[in-house]
Formats: sequence, C-alpha cells, structure tokens
Amino acid sequence: MTQVCLVIGAGAGIGGHVGARFAAGGYHSVLVRRSDADGLARLVSGICDAGGAATGRLVNAVEDGALEDLIAQVETDIGPIHTILYNLGAQIGDRPLEATSPKAFEMGWRLACFGLFRVAQAAFPVMAARGQGALLVTSATAALRGNKGQHSHAAAMGGRRMLCQSLNAQYASHGIHVAHIVVDGAVDAPDTLGKMLGPERFAAFRAAKGPDGLMNPAEMAESYWHIAHQHRAAWTHEMDLRAWSDVAWWNNA
Amino acid sequence: MTQVCLVIGAGAGIGGHVGARFAAGGYHSVLVRRSDADGLARLVSGICDAGGAATGRLVNAVEDGALEDLIAQVETDIGPIHTILYNLGAQIGDRPLEATSPKAFEMGWRLACFGLFRVAQAAFPVMAARGQGALLVTSATAALRGNKGQHSHAAAMGGRRMLCQSLNAQYASHGIHVAHIVVDGAVDAPDTLGKMLGPERFAAFRAAKGPDGLMNPAEMAESYWHIAHQHRAAWTHEMDLRAWSDVAWWNNA
Amino acid sequence: MTQVCLVIGAGAGIGGHVGARFAAGGYHSVLVRRSDADGLARLVSGICDAGGAATGRLVNAVEDGALEDLIAQVETDIGPIHTILYNLGAQIGDRPLEATSPKAFEMGWRLACFGLFRVAQAAFPVMAARGQGALLVTSATAALRGNKGQHSHAAAMGGRRMLCQSLNAQYASHGIHVAHIVVDGAVDAPDTLGKMLGPERFAAFRAAKGPDGLMNPAEMAESYWHIAHQHRAAWTHEMDLRAWSDVAWWNNA
Amino acid sequence: MTQVCLVIGAGAGIGGHVGARFAAGGYHSVLVRRSDADGLARLVSGICDAGGAATGRLVNAVEDGALEDLIAQVETDIGPIHTILYNLGAQIGDRPLEATSPKAFEMGWRLACFGLFRVAQAAFPVMAARGQGALLVTSATAALRGNKGQHSHAAAMGGRRMLCQSLNAQYASHGIHVAHIVVDGAVDAPDTLGKMLGPERFAAFRAAKGPDGLMNPAEMAESYWHIAHQHRAAWTHEMDLRAWSDVAWWNNA
Repeated sequence: MTQVCLVIGAGAGIGGHVGARFAAGGYHSVLVRRSDADGLARLVSGICDAGGAATGRLVNAVEDGALEDLIAQVETDIGPIHTILYNLGAQIGDRPLEATSPKAFEMGWRLACFGLFRVAQAAFPVMAARGQGALLVTSATAALRGNKGQHSHAAAMGGRRMLCQSLNAQYASHGIHVAHIVVDGAVDAPDTLGKMLGPERFAAFRAAKGPDGLMNPAEMAESYWHIAHQHRAAWTHEMDLRAWSDVAWWNNA
Repeated sequence: MTQVCLVIGAGAGIGGHVGARFAAGGYHSVLVRRSDADGLARLVSGICDAGGAATGRLVNAVEDGALEDLIAQVETDIGPIHTILYNLGAQIGDRPLEATSPKAFEMGWRLACFGLFRVAQAAFPVMAARGQGALLVTSATAALRGNKGQHSHAAAMGGRRMLCQSLNAQYASHGIHVAHIVVDGAVDAPDTLGKMLGPERFAAFRAAKGPDGLMNPAEMAESYWHIAHQHRAAWTHEMDLRAWSDVAWWNNA
Repeated sequence: MTQVCLVIGAGAGIGGHVGARFAAGGYHSVLVRRSDADGLARLVSGICDAGGAATGRLVNAVEDGALEDLIAQVETDIGPIHTILYNLGAQIGDRPLEATSPKAFEMGWRLACFGLFRVAQAAFPVMAARGQGALLVTSATAALRGNKGQHSHAAAMGGRRMLCQSLNAQYASHGIHVAHIVVDGAVDAPDTLGKMLGPERFAAFRAAKGPDGLMNPAEMAESYWHIAHQHRAAWTHEMDLRAWSDVAWWNNA
Repeated sequence: MTQVCLVIGAGAGIGGHVGARFAAGGYHSVLVRRSDADGLARLVSGICDAGGAATGRLVNAVEDGALEDLIAQVETDIGPIHTILYNLGAQIGDRPLEATSPKAFEMGWRLACFGLFRVAQAAFPVMAARGQGALLVTSATAALRGNKGQHSHAAAMGGRRMLCQSLNAQYASHGIHVAHIVVDGAVDAPDTLGKMLGPERFAAFRAAKGPDGLMNPAEMAESYWHIAHQHRAAWTHEMDLRAWSDVAWWNNA
C-alpha cells in the first residue's frame, strides 16, 4: 500500500512544496488546510497532473477531535502515514502586549502547540506499532528567542520546541523520527508572506532581497525530504534554514 | 505608602520564603495560593510575628478574571506593587504521552504560561506608568529542554521562557525588570516535593543528598531579593540556581 | 575542471566516508591525515577501484604553514575546492583538570580551533572570488556544553562553534556555506572509537548498542553531501546527528 | 587571616570596582593588571583611603608561569584566596577575517581561555583542599554567539564558557563555585571603552545612551559580590547583565 505524507498546513509555500516533493518520491500526499477550497484543489491537481498521488482535506485544526479524526481516516481510507509535516504557524504579526488579546494568545497556543500534541497522541501509537514514522515540524526563530511584539507567537513556538524534544525523548527509540526545522528567514510564499504584505509590497520586498534572497520553498522541501529519509543510524533532530543573504537570528542586521 | 511584593504561588517553599524576605526588607507581602487556608494563615502569621506586614489571599489562578481582579484590588487596597513573583508551576510528575490527557496538557499551559501573560497584561501598564517594577518568574529545567515524560511541563515552561524574553524586550526600557530564574535542582520544600514523595521518602531523599544537598528556599530568596533590587544600570534577565552537589542539566548524573 | 572535496582528517570513519560519497558524486576527493600511509592508501584505492577520483596526503595540521600550503597546492595541482570538510577532533578521553597538561590543552586548541581559522583564512578569499564554496565542520556535543573531564575538548570545540558562526556571519553573503554538524553519539569508526576501546571492548560495545545503535558514517555522509548541495536559498548552518537509540545530550541516559 | 579577593584584570571598570567592593566587605583585594603602574596605584590607594586592604601587582598573564607564581605568592604572602575574578578580555574591535592575524587570534585565546585554564589549575587544588572558593569569570556576548568581525573574540570567549562549565562539573561538589557572568552591554569604563573611543566620542556615546544607559561597574560589582556569597545550597553558574535600555543580544536593535 502506498505510504502517506500528511501535510497539516498546506498552502502554496512550504506545505504545498513538501507535499509535491513527497508525491514525486512515490508517496500519497494528503494536503490539509482550514479554508480556500480552490487553492487546495489547485495544489492537488498540480500534483496529480505531474503524475503524483494527492488528496485534499479542509480541516479546522482547533476543533475538538478534528485532527484525531483526520489521522484515523487517513490511516483507514488512504494508507499508512509515514511522514507528518506539522506546518501550522501562529504568526499574527508584531503586536505589543496591550494589543494581544487573551483570545489571540490562546489561539496561538491551540494552533502551534496544542495541535501538535494532539497529532502526536493520535499518530504515535500507530507509528510506534509499525516501528517507523517521521514527524517534521516547521518552526520559526520565535521558538528560540522572544521578541518585542511576539508575546503570543514566541510563547506558542517556544512551547512547541520543548514538546518536540519531549516527543523525541520518548519515541526515538521506538523508531519515530521527530525533527524540528527552524525557518530563520522570509519564505517566498504567496499564501502567507504575500497575503500579509499585499502584491505591491511583496514584489518590492522580493526585489530588495535580490536573487535567491527569499527562502525558496521548493528547495526547502528537498531538506524536509532528506531529513524524513535519513537512516535511523544518523538522525537529525534540529536544523536551521535561511537564505544565503539572511542574517542569522543571533546576529544583528 | 508601603510597596507591595505580590507572590503568586505561595507555599512553604520558594514562594513563602520570598514573601518573608521581602517583608523583612520592608515590603507588604501579599501571599496568594489556591487552597489550604490554614497553611496560608501560618505563613502570614509567621511573617507578622517577625514584625513584617503580610496578607493572604486564596485565588484560583485559572479562573477568568481572577488574576486581573487580584492585581487591581492589591493596588487599590494595599499599595503599589513593586515586585511580582510568579511562582506557579505545572509539574505533574513524569507521564508518558499516552498518560498525558489533553486536559492536563491544557491545564499546564493555563497555569504556567497563560497565567503569566494575564498577570503581565494587568500589571505592566500600571508599573510602566510609574517607570518601575519587577516581575520575577520561577522557572525550571524543563524551560530549557524537553524530556521523556515532560510533554506537558516542558511545553508550558518553554513557552513561558519565550514569553519572559518578549515581555523584557517590550518593557525593560519602561523600567520593568523581568527576570527568569531557572531552578535546576530539587528544593527543600515540604509543600511540593515533600507532598509528592510522602514523609518517609522525603526524609530518605534528604538524607541521601547530604548536607546542603537540597536547594534551600530561604537562601534562594536572597537571590530573588538581590535580583529585584539590582540597579537598572545592571539588570539580570536570566540566572540559574542549583545546589553545590547538583549536576547541571546539561551534564549527566 | 573537476571540483575538489578536501577532507582534513580522513580516517576510516566520517572523513573517509564523506570522501567516498563526494567521489561517487563526481568530485575529486583529497584525503588528508597526519599518519598511517597504509590506511590512507587503502581509502584512496577503495575510492579509485569504485571508479572515483581521489588523492591522499599526509599532513601535520599543526605545523606552521602546512594547511595553507595544502590548500594552495590543491587549488594549483588538482582543481578548485568546492567543499572542505574540517574533520579534525580534539578528543583526548576523559581527563580531570589535574591530568590535563597545558600542552594537551594547547594542542586541543591548535587542532580543533586554530587549524579551522587557518583553513578559512587560506581558502575563503579564493572561494569568495568564485562566489561559491562550502565548509563543513564536524563537531561534537562538547561544543555545546562543558563536562567533567572535558576541559580541553570542550574549550576547543566551544571556541570552534563560535568561530563557525563568525565565519558564516562574514561569508554567507559571499556565497560560502559554513555548516556546523554536531555529532551527538558514538560513531561506528574503527580508526577512532575502535582504537580507543581496543577490538574486544569495541565489539562488546557494538553488540550492546543493538542494531543501528552506533552512528553509521556512510549514512552520515549522505547528510554531509546534502548540506553541501543545498541551494543557497535554503542553507543550514547547524544540524545535529545521532542514532535513533541515542539519548540527546540535553537529556539523561 | 584575612581572606583574599584576587582580581586578574583590574582597570577602572569592573575589575577595580569588584576589588573595591570586596575590600569594603572585609577582604584583602589583590589587583592585577599588565601595565599602567600609576593607574594601579590609584586604584589601590583609593581602596586603602576608604579603609580597605589592597595590594597591586603588575603581571603579564601570558608569560609562562606568571599566573601560577602569582597565585602561589598571594597564598603565601597575603592570605588564602576566597574569590578569584578572572576579568581579562580579548576584545580587539571588529576585524574581518583577513585583518585578523594568526598571532592576534592566538593572543585572544591565550588571554581569554588558556589563562583561565592555568588559573584554575593553580588555584583549584588549594581551594578544594579547603572545601571552599569562588571563581567569577567576566564574560561577553561573544561567548554565546559568533559575529562578523569577532572571529578571534568569539572563538576565545566561546571556549572559555565551555571551560567554565567543565570546571563547574568537576569542582562544584568540592565546594568551588564557578560563575560565568555574561556582560551584554557597554560598560561605563574609562580604561577600556573610554580608551577605545577617545574622550570626545566617549562623552557623546554616554550622552546618547541617556541616564543609566551605560552599565555601571559599581552596581555590577554588587552582583559579583552577591554571587560570590551565595550559600552553597543555592548557587548560580550563569547570569547575564545589561542596562535597562540595552537590547538583549538575542533581539535586534
């Protein structure tokens, strides 16, 4: 039976490209996002047109049972899940403390941290029974240091990083590879950065960054693929990614 | 008017001793805990008998509005808050993923991370208007690395650490000193460790650790006091604390 | 002209396998070690027998000018250096402070830290002029935390890690990819671990670790290869590697 | 017999102020620097005029045996060393790789890293025999992350940090308290920053930073004093220090 790559958070950036990369490598990619049925259909048909196997699902990750049901259904209806990419973010832009509502703070945690916990609880027993599986988690600079205006984002992503280490500590020896991938730069992603900036500012930003100055999600997907297929005698738990012209988070621009 | 030291999470360990230390230094200590009115009364009367000023409050920190109301009432009824010690933990003992209920995971976050966010939202505008204030946060090894059985605790404390850095980034220049104090060892605290182990095992553990082998909360309180009174031209944001015979978390026993 | 992969520190473990992997991928691998001409000849002929291109050199890295001359000669005589693997370690086994001679401490620094500085000084201007190059640095847990008995090793590797970050900060935007690869487990390497333990203890250790319980240098070489060929729009500066059954350094066994 | 506080690197900034603070607390402060006999005499007489005990020594720390002899002589001639402050830096200003000579790189290591190793080797056996002692190490942001132009400084300080952790791992349980104090801001120090900038630029810089915008070495000395006198049941190994208006190294200005 074809193995599944389940992408939770599949837009036109990292998520869509990882789905396409795994489909090109012989997996059935299941692409999951909350909304935009048309955008999802385009991603799925793009993969199928290229000869790959893909399925799309609209799922609201914060609903009770939604992620748990998704995983059970995929296992039953589509195939055994080899790799899960947890690609939900919680970036709400820079907001000072007084403009960060408790509701927004809680939503950040539900999306970025609690959702990952629920996914692991639903999927890891099945993966552990097979002695094999990979959980790739897209992370951000905010998982490594808090910052002005990042109260919600940093709290959610910092908790997520510690959760990844905890999951790895319990499950690596059961054959489940948990990898925390720190994206430390701006990604050339029309569905997230593009929408946040709007078309004109996005074009200007891309021009200002110069050639290969934005992170390329198709190239990033090559590293996601590599990590998910490392031999168990040489696993990576954490790696960073940035463009050649990006300044690392620990340096100043 | 006497300045207030507000201790949120005041048992017979770090919280109670910090309250006593600040009262000895001339503050009015407001001791807050969820339950055990008798234990709270003993802490308060211990401070008062020694000539200090103290008030006790039973508050359930996870209730809507409870922390916000507490801060407003203290400011109105008792005095301006100089220092807040956020001393609520979220340790639930070692639990594998399958034994960590979503409810427990959420409660860990509500106590250790969301509560701190709410306290900062309620108190920082007032402190910033005065150009002065300190928020001391008792933290744990789990804020720095995840571990087997620490899924809930590490996620909550890791988020909390990033939140502390975010709060510092926005508020240090407004005169609010945020300090994240990493307790990396077992504290000689009858209300937490003592209850977890039971009297016999606690006694045996203390004996096995040898002289000064457990962290002494009265001595720890001296460092809390020092940090809260550093001149603004030389502030500490993060420090660790452990007993001389403890092995640091980054080493192996 | 064939591009060169220069391996400084080429034994039968990581160094030899990375050399073989790059040769299989079309590079001319230049293998450098201090001694054991026979072992070096075996590595080189193994690569050539498999249809690859390789050259061996015996070089004492701590001699004045030795690394500088090596790089100049390779560029002149063999071809443009695309990738350098700096694979010299400074592990001298666990030694308490009183048994660590100043000479040993200095030698650790010369091998692990100063040598890397000299290599970068010699090679980076040439690479920067071409707008392209990769420096892969094999690192160890000791780069991330000191430990009892690791006074020399940790000081040397910790300095090396900060040097890698400094080199990256200056040279990434010139097209030079510096990657710091943290090897956080025991490698199945007869020339280092095998010699340290002796044949019987090495065999027993391998058996105790179980299947794939030691890190496999051939599989590790796949990740070295991947990192050296990441597109510049998605570069990794730091990643860790360990076997599935290894306990990460931040956890306890 | 009066206990000694030995300050290695005693100028008019941190070193001199720590010496004065310990003398005020009843110690005999031994102030050591490489040159400027007049400046040293002024520091010593300042302490003595205030009723304290102090001695000055001109020592070139990189000379063979110089630090070892110093420690032996102080123990014999002045008194038992309770606290050593290792305050030698290795900052040579921002220099790109091509302008960093191998000699400068080596000198950085000799001053910042090797010297500390030699001090520990000379002093720790004596302190361990007494079951008591403190080694305070002034550190810098460069111990935590490399940066453009910091090749020498970061390599030296990063090694030093790992050495401090190694020393702590071996010696904490013998009663020796090793503390690594990260100075993450500009210090109001005429002998270092003042000389680097020259009088006019120094004055302008101070004005631009605003009130308490530079770190105050007298206030910093209070935290050095506190750390050296923490009870062994509550020791700090690492803490950071910066001014309230400084941006922490992990954030951007």
